[in-house]
Amino acid sequence: MTARTLRLEPVTREAFAPFGQLIEAAGASTDANQGTAARFDFAARLANLRPHARPNVAVFRAQPRHLPLAIRLLEKHPGSSQMFVPMTAPRYAVLVARARPDGAPDLDTLRAFACASHQAINYDAGTWHHPMVALDAPSDFVMLAWEDGTPGDCVEHPLDGGWTLTG
Amino acid sequence: MTARTLRLEPVTREAFAPFGQLIEAAGASTDANQGTAARFDFAARLANLRPHARPNVAVFRAQPRHLPLAIRLLEKHPGSSQMFVPMTAPRYAVLVARARPDGAPDLDTLRAFACASHQAINYDAGTWHHPMVALDAPSDFVMLAWEDGTPGDCVEHPLDGGWTLTG
Repeated sequence: MTARTLRLEPVTREAFAPFGQLIEAAGASTDANQGTAARFDFAARLANLRPHARPNVAVFRAQPRHLPLAIRLLEKHPGSSQMFVPMTAPRYAVLVARARPDGAPDLDTLRAFACASHQAINYDAGTWHHPMVALDAPSDFVMLAWEDGTPGDCVEHPLDGGWTLTG
Repeated sequence: MTARTLRLEPVTREAFAPFGQLIEAAGASTDANQGTAARFDFAARLANLRPHARPNVAVFRAQPRHLPLAIRLLEKHPGSSQMFVPMTAPRYAVLVARARPDGAPDLDTLRAFACASHQAINYDAGTWHHPMVALDAPSDFVMLAWEDGTPGDCVEHPLDGGWTLTG
Protein backbone atom coordinates (compact mmCIF):
# COMPACT_ATOMS: atom_id res chain seq x y z
CA MET A 1 0.00 0.00 0.00
CA THR A 2 1.52 3.26 -1.14
CA ALA A 3 0.70 6.49 0.64
CA ARG A 4 -0.84 8.94 -1.78
CA THR A 5 -1.20 12.67 -1.43
CA LEU A 6 -4.06 14.72 -2.81
CA ARG A 7 -3.40 18.45 -3.09
CA LEU A 8 -6.08 21.11 -2.85
CA GLU A 9 -6.43 23.08 -6.07
CA PRO A 10 -8.56 26.19 -6.69
CA VAL A 11 -11.99 25.29 -8.05
CA THR A 12 -13.08 26.49 -11.48
CA ARG A 13 -16.26 25.80 -13.41
CA GLU A 14 -14.32 23.99 -16.11
CA ALA A 15 -12.33 21.80 -13.72
CA PHE A 16 -15.46 20.86 -11.75
CA ALA A 17 -17.65 20.19 -14.81
CA PRO A 18 -16.97 16.41 -14.98
CA PHE A 19 -18.39 16.08 -11.46
CA GLY A 20 -21.21 18.63 -11.33
CA GLN A 21 -21.58 22.39 -11.30
CA LEU A 22 -19.76 25.21 -9.57
CA ILE A 23 -22.41 27.78 -8.66
CA GLU A 24 -21.13 31.36 -8.50
CA ALA A 25 -21.80 34.85 -9.84
CA ALA A 26 -19.99 34.39 -13.14
CA GLY A 27 -20.94 34.25 -16.79
CA ALA A 28 -24.01 35.85 -18.35
CA SER A 29 -26.36 37.73 -16.05
CA THR A 30 -29.55 39.77 -16.27
CA ASP A 31 -30.77 42.72 -14.22
CA ALA A 32 -33.18 41.99 -11.39
CA ASN A 33 -34.91 43.72 -8.52
CA GLN A 34 -35.29 47.14 -10.14
CA GLY A 35 -31.64 47.25 -11.09
CA THR A 36 -30.31 46.50 -7.61
CA ALA A 37 -29.22 42.95 -8.37
CA ALA A 38 -27.76 40.78 -11.12
CA ARG A 39 -28.99 37.24 -11.53
CA PHE A 40 -27.11 34.28 -13.03
CA ASP A 41 -29.75 31.74 -13.98
CA PHE A 42 -29.82 27.95 -14.32
CA ALA A 43 -26.49 27.49 -12.58
CA ALA A 44 -27.08 23.91 -11.41
CA ARG A 45 -28.49 20.74 -12.92
CA LEU A 46 -30.81 19.36 -10.23
CA ALA A 47 -31.81 15.74 -10.75
CA ASN A 48 -34.10 13.31 -9.00
CA LEU A 49 -34.11 9.86 -10.61
CA ARG A 50 -36.66 8.35 -8.18
CA PRO A 51 -40.09 9.94 -8.58
CA HIS A 52 -41.17 8.91 -5.07
CA ALA A 53 -38.17 10.51 -3.36
CA ARG A 54 -38.70 13.77 -1.46
CA PRO A 55 -36.63 16.92 -1.69
CA ASN A 56 -34.66 17.40 1.51
CA VAL A 57 -33.43 20.91 2.25
CA ALA A 58 -31.16 20.33 5.24
CA VAL A 59 -28.76 22.49 7.17
CA PHE A 60 -25.36 20.92 7.81
CA ARG A 61 -23.30 22.36 10.66
CA ALA A 62 -19.80 21.07 9.95
CA GLN A 63 -16.85 21.22 12.31
CA PRO A 64 -13.60 22.28 10.64
CA ARG A 65 -11.10 19.62 9.65
CA HIS A 66 -7.38 20.14 9.75
CA LEU A 67 -4.84 19.38 7.04
CA PRO A 68 -3.21 17.01 6.42
CA LEU A 69 -6.41 14.95 6.59
CA ALA A 70 -6.63 11.18 6.12
CA ILE A 71 -9.23 10.35 3.45
CA ARG A 72 -10.92 7.09 4.38
CA LEU A 73 -14.06 6.90 2.24
CA LEU A 74 -16.05 8.28 -0.64
CA GLU A 75 -19.82 8.29 -1.05
CA LYS A 76 -22.35 8.81 -3.82
CA HIS A 77 -26.07 9.39 -4.21
CA PRO A 78 -27.10 7.29 -7.22
CA GLY A 79 -30.64 8.71 -7.36
CA SER A 80 -30.12 12.40 -6.79
CA SER A 81 -27.97 15.41 -7.37
CA GLN A 82 -26.69 16.99 -4.17
CA MET A 83 -26.15 20.73 -3.74
CA PHE A 84 -24.23 22.44 -0.94
CA VAL A 85 -24.51 26.19 -0.43
CA PRO A 86 -22.15 27.69 2.18
CA MET A 87 -23.78 30.17 4.55
CA THR A 88 -20.96 30.74 7.00
CA ALA A 89 -18.06 28.77 5.52
CA PRO A 90 -14.93 30.83 4.91
CA ARG A 91 -13.43 27.96 2.89
CA TYR A 92 -14.20 24.33 2.26
CA ALA A 93 -12.77 21.38 0.35
CA VAL A 94 -14.64 19.26 -2.15
CA LEU A 95 -13.16 15.87 -3.11
CA VAL A 96 -14.59 14.14 -6.16
CA ALA A 97 -13.96 11.18 -8.44
CA ARG A 98 -15.54 9.76 -11.56
CA ALA A 99 -16.86 6.19 -11.60
CA ARG A 100 -15.16 3.26 -13.27
CA PRO A 101 -17.23 1.10 -15.65
CA ASP A 102 -17.93 -1.26 -12.72
CA GLY A 103 -19.28 1.64 -10.66
CA ALA A 104 -16.43 1.93 -8.16
CA PRO A 105 -14.57 5.23 -7.91
CA ASP A 106 -11.80 5.73 -10.44
CA LEU A 107 -9.04 6.96 -8.16
CA ASP A 108 -7.02 8.18 -11.13
CA THR A 109 -9.66 10.92 -11.43
CA LEU A 110 -9.72 11.86 -7.73
CA ARG A 111 -9.35 15.62 -7.23
CA ALA A 112 -9.65 18.03 -4.33
CA PHE A 113 -11.00 21.54 -4.90
CA ALA A 114 -10.82 24.50 -2.54
CA CYS A 115 -14.04 26.53 -2.60
CA ALA A 116 -14.62 29.98 -1.16
CA SER A 117 -17.55 31.51 0.71
CA HIS A 118 -19.16 32.84 -2.50
CA GLN A 119 -19.13 29.45 -4.26
CA ALA A 120 -21.70 26.68 -4.01
CA ILE A 121 -21.44 23.27 -5.65
CA ASN A 122 -23.83 20.66 -7.02
CA TYR A 123 -22.72 17.06 -7.44
CA ASP A 124 -24.32 15.27 -10.36
CA ALA A 125 -26.27 12.16 -9.38
CA GLY A 126 -23.83 9.29 -8.91
CA THR A 127 -20.68 11.40 -8.55
CA TRP A 128 -18.30 9.96 -5.97
CA HIS A 129 -17.34 12.53 -3.35
CA HIS A 130 -16.01 12.83 0.16
CA PRO A 131 -18.30 14.06 2.95
CA MET A 132 -18.13 17.85 3.31
CA VAL A 133 -14.76 19.12 4.55
CA ALA A 134 -15.14 22.50 6.26
CA LEU A 135 -11.87 24.34 6.74
CA ASP A 136 -10.84 27.15 9.06
CA ALA A 137 -14.10 27.47 11.09
CA PRO A 138 -17.37 25.78 12.02
CA SER A 139 -19.51 26.20 8.93
CA ASP A 140 -23.22 26.03 8.14
CA PHE A 141 -24.30 24.82 4.71
CA VAL A 142 -27.71 24.39 3.11
CA MET A 143 -27.91 21.01 1.35
CA LEU A 144 -30.47 19.90 -1.23
CA ALA A 145 -30.96 16.29 -2.33
CA TRP A 146 -33.88 13.99 -3.02
CA GLU A 147 -34.16 11.12 -0.54
CA ASP A 148 -36.50 8.22 0.18
CA GLY A 149 -35.02 7.16 3.52
CA THR A 150 -33.58 3.87 2.21
CA PRO A 151 -29.92 2.78 2.15
CA GLY A 152 -29.96 3.59 -1.57
CA ASP A 153 -29.90 7.29 -0.67
CA CYS A 154 -26.18 7.08 0.03
CA VAL A 155 -23.62 4.45 -1.03
CA GLU A 156 -20.22 4.44 0.67
CA HIS A 157 -16.90 3.14 -0.63
CA PRO A 158 -13.98 2.71 1.79
CA LEU A 159 -10.67 4.10 0.61
CA ASP A 160 -7.81 2.03 1.92
CA GLY A 161 -5.10 3.41 -0.29
CA GLY A 162 -3.59 5.62 2.40
CA TRP A 163 -4.84 8.84 0.84
CA THR A 164 -4.04 12.14 2.54
CA LEU A 165 -5.42 15.57 1.69
CA THR A 166 -2.91 18.39 1.99
CA GLY A 167 -3.14 22.13 1.44
CA MET B 1 -52.33 58.86 1.65
CA THR B 2 -50.71 58.29 5.02
CA ALA B 3 -47.01 57.55 5.32
CA ARG B 4 -46.49 54.22 7.00
CA THR B 5 -43.38 52.87 8.65
CA LEU B 6 -42.35 49.23 8.71
CA ARG B 7 -39.76 48.32 11.33
CA LEU B 8 -37.25 45.51 10.99
CA GLU B 9 -37.75 42.79 13.58
CA PRO B 10 -35.51 39.77 14.28
CA VAL B 11 -36.65 36.72 12.35
CA THR B 12 -37.77 33.59 14.19
CA ARG B 13 -39.12 30.33 12.83
CA GLU B 14 -42.46 30.95 14.52
CA ALA B 15 -42.86 34.51 13.28
CA PHE B 16 -41.95 33.53 9.72
CA ALA B 17 -44.14 30.40 9.60
CA PRO B 18 -47.22 32.09 8.05
CA PHE B 19 -45.07 33.06 5.06
CA GLY B 20 -42.69 30.13 4.61
CA GLN B 21 -39.76 28.57 6.43
CA LEU B 22 -36.74 29.97 8.20
CA ILE B 23 -33.86 27.57 7.45
CA GLU B 24 -31.18 27.43 10.14
CA ALA B 25 -29.28 25.01 12.37
CA ALA B 26 -31.96 24.73 15.05
CA GLY B 27 -34.26 22.02 16.36
CA ALA B 28 -33.66 18.31 16.12
CA SER B 29 -30.49 17.13 14.41
CA THR B 30 -28.67 13.91 13.64
CA ASP B 31 -24.97 13.12 13.39
CA ALA B 32 -23.45 13.05 9.92
CA ASN B 33 -20.09 12.72 8.19
CA GLN B 34 -18.47 10.38 10.73
CA GLY B 35 -19.42 12.61 13.62
CA THR B 36 -17.94 15.81 12.19
CA ALA B 37 -21.27 17.43 11.31
CA ALA B 38 -24.85 17.75 12.53
CA ARG B 39 -27.69 17.78 10.02
CA PHE B 40 -31.10 19.40 10.41
CA ASP B 41 -33.34 17.71 7.85
CA PHE B 42 -36.43 18.74 5.90
CA ALA B 43 -36.09 22.40 6.82
CA ALA B 44 -38.01 23.81 3.84
CA ARG B 45 -41.21 22.97 2.00
CA LEU B 46 -40.28 23.15 -1.67
CA ALA B 47 -43.25 23.33 -4.01
CA ASN B 48 -43.72 23.36 -7.77
CA LEU B 49 -47.36 23.64 -8.81
CA ARG B 50 -46.67 23.54 -12.56
CA PRO B 51 -45.30 20.16 -13.67
CA HIS B 52 -43.75 21.62 -16.81
CA ALA B 53 -41.79 24.31 -14.94
CA ARG B 54 -38.02 23.85 -14.53
CA PRO B 55 -36.01 24.24 -11.34
CA ASN B 56 -33.85 27.34 -11.55
CA VAL B 57 -30.86 27.50 -9.24
CA ALA B 58 -29.67 31.08 -9.74
CA VAL B 59 -27.08 33.25 -8.07
CA PHE B 60 -28.29 36.73 -7.14
CA ARG B 61 -25.61 39.37 -6.57
CA ALA B 62 -27.49 42.10 -4.68
CA GLN B 63 -26.24 45.60 -4.02
CA PRO B 64 -26.87 46.79 -0.46
CA ARG B 65 -29.85 49.05 0.20
CA HIS B 66 -29.83 51.79 2.78
CA LEU B 67 -32.43 52.48 5.44
CA PRO B 68 -34.83 54.18 5.53
CA LEU B 69 -35.92 52.52 2.26
CA ALA B 70 -39.08 53.39 0.29
CA ILE B 71 -41.09 50.22 -0.36
CA ARG B 72 -42.79 50.54 -3.75
CA LEU B 73 -43.90 47.02 -4.69
CA LEU B 74 -44.42 43.45 -3.63
CA GLU B 75 -44.23 40.34 -5.78
CA LYS B 76 -45.27 36.71 -5.60
CA HIS B 77 -44.64 33.45 -7.44
CA PRO B 78 -48.01 31.71 -7.63
CA GLY B 79 -46.62 28.46 -8.99
CA SER B 80 -43.49 27.93 -6.94
CA SER B 81 -41.82 28.24 -3.61
CA GLN B 82 -38.73 30.44 -3.65
CA MET B 83 -35.67 29.81 -1.48
CA PHE B 84 -32.82 32.24 -0.84
CA VAL B 85 -29.59 31.05 0.78
CA PRO B 86 -27.09 33.77 1.69
CA MET B 87 -23.50 33.01 0.74
CA THR B 88 -21.83 36.33 1.52
CA ALA B 89 -24.64 38.40 3.08
CA PRO B 90 -23.83 39.73 6.53
CA ARG B 91 -27.48 40.75 6.99
CA TYR B 92 -30.57 41.04 4.84
CA ALA B 93 -34.20 42.08 5.15
CA VAL B 94 -37.19 39.97 4.14
CA LEU B 95 -40.55 41.73 3.72
CA VAL B 96 -43.64 39.54 3.52
CA ALA B 97 -47.42 39.76 3.52
CA ARG B 98 -50.29 37.32 3.45
CA ALA B 99 -52.86 37.50 0.66
CA ARG B 100 -56.40 38.87 1.02
CA PRO B 101 -59.28 36.70 -0.21
CA ASP B 102 -59.14 38.59 -3.54
CA GLY B 103 -55.46 37.70 -3.90
CA ALA B 104 -54.01 41.16 -3.29
CA PRO B 105 -51.55 41.61 -0.43
CA ASP B 106 -53.13 42.15 2.99
CA LEU B 107 -51.06 45.10 4.18
CA ASP B 108 -52.25 44.59 7.74
CA THR B 109 -50.04 41.48 7.73
CA LEU B 110 -46.96 43.16 6.21
CA ARG B 111 -43.83 42.47 8.26
CA ALA B 112 -40.11 43.00 7.82
CA PHE B 113 -37.63 40.48 9.21
CA ALA B 114 -33.89 40.91 9.67
CA CYS B 115 -31.99 37.74 8.78
CA ALA B 116 -28.36 36.93 9.54
CA SER B 117 -25.67 35.20 7.52
CA HIS B 118 -26.49 31.76 8.96
CA GLN B 119 -30.19 31.95 8.07
CA ALA B 120 -31.85 31.08 4.77
CA ILE B 121 -35.53 31.49 3.94
CA ASN B 122 -38.09 29.79 1.73
CA TYR B 123 -41.24 31.64 0.67
CA ASP B 124 -44.27 29.41 0.25
CA ALA B 125 -45.78 29.53 -3.23
CA GLY B 126 -47.97 32.61 -3.51
CA THR B 127 -46.52 34.50 -0.53
CA TRP B 128 -46.25 38.22 -1.24
CA HIS B 129 -42.74 39.53 -0.64
CA HIS B 130 -40.44 42.37 -1.52
CA PRO B 131 -37.45 41.74 -3.80
CA MET B 132 -34.36 40.79 -1.79
CA VAL B 133 -33.01 43.62 0.37
CA ALA B 134 -29.31 43.15 1.06
CA LEU B 135 -27.98 45.28 3.90
CA ASP B 136 -24.48 46.39 4.82
CA ALA B 137 -22.56 44.92 1.84
CA PRO B 138 -22.86 43.50 -1.67
CA SER B 139 -24.25 40.02 -1.11
CA ASP B 140 -24.43 36.82 -3.12
CA PHE B 141 -27.42 34.51 -2.63
CA VAL B 142 -28.34 31.17 -4.16
CA MET B 143 -32.01 31.18 -5.21
CA LEU B 144 -34.19 28.18 -6.05
CA ALA B 145 -37.59 28.43 -7.73
CA TRP B 146 -39.41 26.59 -10.50
CA GLU B 147 -40.00 28.73 -13.60
CA ASP B 148 -41.48 28.32 -17.07
CA GLY B 149 -40.36 31.64 -18.53
CA THR B 150 -43.86 33.12 -18.72
CA PRO B 151 -45.18 36.25 -16.96
CA GLY B 152 -46.91 33.89 -14.53
CA ASP B 153 -43.54 33.18 -12.95
CA CYS B 154 -43.70 36.49 -11.07
CA VAL B 155 -46.68 38.74 -10.33
CA GLU B 156 -46.03 42.29 -9.09
CA HIS B 157 -48.24 44.53 -7.00
CA PRO B 158 -47.40 48.24 -6.69
CA LEU B 159 -47.47 49.66 -3.17
CA ASP B 160 -48.57 53.26 -3.23
CA GLY B 161 -49.24 53.64 0.45
CA GLY B 162 -46.03 55.54 1.17
CA TRP B 163 -44.42 52.64 2.99
CA THR B 164 -40.93 53.07 4.41
CA LEU B 165 -38.67 50.38 5.89
CA THR B 166 -36.65 51.51 8.87
CA GLY B 167 -34.10 49.76 11.09
